[in-house]
Amino acid sequence: MLKNLKEAVCQANRLLPAYGLVRLTWGNVSGVDRERNVMVIKPSGLPYEGMTAEDMVAVDLGTGQVIEGTRRPSVDAEIHLELYRTFPQIGSIVHTHSKWAAVWAQAGREIPALGTTHADEFSGEIPCTREMRAEEIQTNYEQNTGRVMAETLRKQKVRSSGAVLVRSHGPFAWGETPQRAVEVAVTLEEVADMAWHTTLLCGGAPPPVMDELLSRHFCRKHGREAYYGQLF
Amino acid sequence: MLKNLKEAVCQANRLLPAYGLVRLTWGNVSGVDRERNVMVIKPSGLPYEGMTAEDMVAVDLGTGQVIEGTRRPSVDAEIHLELYRTFPQIGSIVHTHSKWAAVWAQAGREIPALGTTHADEFSGEIPCTREMRAEEIQTNYEQNTGRVMAETLRKQKVRSSGAVLVRSHGPFAWGETPQRAVEVAVTLEEVADMAWHTTLLCGGAPPPVMDELLSRHFCRKHGREAYYGQLF
Amino acid sequence: MLKNLKEAVCQANRLLPAYGLVRLTWGNVSGVDRERNVMVIKPSGLPYEGMTAEDMVAVDLGTGQVIEGTRRPSVDAEIHLELYRTFPQIGSIVHTHSKWAAVWAQAGREIPALGTTHADEFSGEIPCTREMRAEEIQTNYEQNTGRVMAETLRKQKVRSSGAVLVRSHGPFAWGETPQRAVEVAVTLEEVADMAWHTTLLCGGAPPPVMDELLSRHFCRKHGREAYYGQLF
Amino acid sequence: MLKNLKEAVCQANRLLPAYGLVRLTWGNVSGVDRERNVMVIKPSGLPYEGMTAEDMVAVDLGTGQVIEGTRRPSVDAEIHLELYRTFPQIGSIVHTHSKWAAVWAQAGREIPALGTTHADEFSGEIPCTREMRAEEIQTNYEQNTGRVMAETLRKQKVRSSGAVLVRSHGPFAWGETPQRAVEVAVTLEEVADMAWHTTLLCGGAPPPVMDELLSRHFCRKHGREAYYGQLF
Repeated sequence: MLKNLKEAVCQANRLLPAYGLVRLTWGNVSGVDRERNVMVIKPSGLPYEGMTAEDMVAVDLGTGQVIEGTRRPSVDAEIHLELYRTFPQIGSIVHTHSKWAAVWAQAGREIPALGTTHADEFSGEIPCTREMRAEEIQTNYEQNTGRVMAETLRKQKVRSSGAVLVRSHGPFAWGETPQRAVEVAVTLEEVADMAWHTTLLCGGAPPPVMDELLSRHFCRKHGREAYYGQLF
Repeated sequence: MLKNLKEAVCQANRLLPAYGLVRLTWGNVSGVDRERNVMVIKPSGLPYEGMTAEDMVAVDLGTGQVIEGTRRPSVDAEIHLELYRTFPQIGSIVHTHSKWAAVWAQAGREIPALGTTHADEFSGEIPCTREMRAEEIQTNYEQNTGRVMAETLRKQKVRSSGAVLVRSHGPFAWGETPQRAVEVAVTLEEVADMAWHTTLLCGGAPPPVMDELLSRHFCRKHGREAYYGQLF
Repeated sequence: MLKNLKEAVCQANRLLPAYGLVRLTWGNVSGVDRERNVMVIKPSGLPYEGMTAEDMVAVDLGTGQVIEGTRRPSVDAEIHLELYRTFPQIGSIVHTHSKWAAVWAQAGREIPALGTTHADEFSGEIPCTREMRAEEIQTNYEQNTGRVMAETLRKQKVRSSGAVLVRSHGPFAWGETPQRAVEVAVTLEEVADMAWHTTLLCGGAPPPVMDELLSRHFCRKHGREAYYGQLF
Repeated sequence: MLKNLKEAVCQANRLLPAYGLVRLTWGNVSGVDRERNVMVIKPSGLPYEGMTAEDMVAVDLGTGQVIEGTRRPSVDAEIHLELYRTFPQIGSIVHTHSKWAAVWAQAGREIPALGTTHADEFSGEIPCTREMRAEEIQTNYEQNTGRVMAETLRKQKVRSSGAVLVRSHGPFAWGETPQRAVEVAVTLEEVADMAWHTTLLCGGAPPPVMDELLSRHFCRKHGREAYYGQLF
């Protein structure tokens, strides 16, 4: 069971090094089967090369217990679970330490919307979570990380695709499917890179993209009035 | 009909990822047949890999209607059309979100001419368009984008090759043929990169290239007195 | 004799260009056999491509004399020896001029701990050695370099893996095995890169990672309470 | 005749894109045969891929006339000739627009010696030529470029390997052989990159490498007391 989801999650994990989003084993993709109430995720610390669908680990969305697979799930599994539980519109999650997004996360700053590359995927700035309290780190750290992310995200409209930075840590991106979630992570990294360079070129105060342009580009690609791509 | 042009446009589109100018599907090349009054352009959202000449879409230069091809043209088709209509000396156009040029576009700044790498291809700075008005974005957005570019370009001598930045968006480059337009886009990206780093090294005020040097290098490669390359 | 160690050291050396840590021949990996009291190291100036285990040079840990191999050892051999002699917990050492770590070394600054990518491998900042005195450079330069590194490292808890910057020079990283030492060098380079960009984004004063987060992430992957990776 | 030199020059030219030093056709390598008084150089504007030794052009060192080859020599041939005529210790010259070195050239600044990566190849800072006068650009531009470089270089000890930046233009590097000249160009690009980042990290005032360290590292690899590499 879950064969197609495991295959899609495995392929998405293998895209991470192909797109230059990870070094060593620093990243993981998960996907969810809402009918079966199951999350499929990369095993902890396993190299991407040679990884197969059978290596993926299936976890019960409610209990967090492993229900299929012989390996230990990613140490970040509880973070993924917390997001799936809170936001039913999320189908797949990508977590990496991709450099440019991680730099903004380390700075503790949201990524501002500065152009149409950003607007083509995101409807506004990429938020950054608040600093966690000592006790949130010392006990149930991963679950609390997910909760702090949810706390941040609930302040905006959470769509079926998007991204958030965990302060001092790195980015999480999501989408309807594992392939889409990876695309969102790729776009996030690119806009983080461009935003860094635009910010420095402008002495720290880059001009934001106009609201009308932000909205126009987002709607060319997303939602009912989208007219980007092919009709198939 | 248009077989050679479709082949050239297809090949030029496939050069974009090969030269590192695009991520995912963020870029498009078009070419024009002035005798037939037809533009050939990449389809919207199609991956470069596996794309063939038959996938290209032919659009009437006057009406903007698709006259050959089963796919939808790039959402940016109207921008390309507007440039071809305004400037008869343009044979092919490349649009990308290549990082370094996009950074200058996001900053809303022209790229200054700081050295001979710039002067070997461009006769002066790369201009950046003005901010669009809300109503220009909300109605006929793509056509208006082309018009604002034309407005900017008419302030200088528009040659058969060159480039312009669309504010908060990214670069458009053009040339006599699809292959040349891609070369111009490659050069633009490189000079945008060098100009960014020179500007920061000089604390925001880099020394411009001398006028005589700008002119000398441009004329070594362009126009009647060019003496670069082979005579074949 | 030493066949396995030579093989492991050779493979680790060949990983340096594969991970983008070296240009030309600028880097070397060594490993130690504590029972035999022997260090195995890359030969001086030899290209990585085509290098075999037989090319590796075995040096007596006590006398510094070559005991196996027909080639001259790396000119940095004395630096490696000094570290092995001082710190019995070190099993393998990697020295490179990898760009980002070298930039911090050239600046004469320690790399601050700014996020969890750093904390996943290092328990605190990466120290930078003091300036060497003229006489330390003019006589027994390599041995003195090792001594100055030891002087710096003794101010902290030296673990079986870690890294240090030699001022005006570049990084040394170590681990339990040659493969691990390369992983540490890869991680060092990545955190040096992220720290540089975070520092500039924050105008020179980036927020340090919280102590609790630093400790939590380090202990997820290191020591008795580690829960990262697979149990095999 | 000149078969070996043409082969070496051709191979060195093909190394330029392999080392990432050139885009499109922006770079050229030449070599000299002092006995025959002949320079061999890349043809103007020819792509590196598919280029063969037969494509190389032989030019008389005295008259500057083509004496072998059916193609036009690089437009920069006169610059190379001027350097060979002035400095008999130079065996091969590489000219590129490699990004990092070009950035310092565009800034009109010498590259300071900030660490041992620099000192391993260069005995001091990399100088930058003065601004050329209008009349030097308008008449005999290439020859005058060579003369201005010689003017700058004569202020220091010119060794058989080294490099110089031409203001607003880019780097020239030289060595005993075409292969060595390419190595010097690779090292120049790397130290230009590191120096840029060290300078920005230090707010514009990076600490120079100590004179003793500069001298020690240069002499480990160059001259009579060198002890780097193998004895073969």
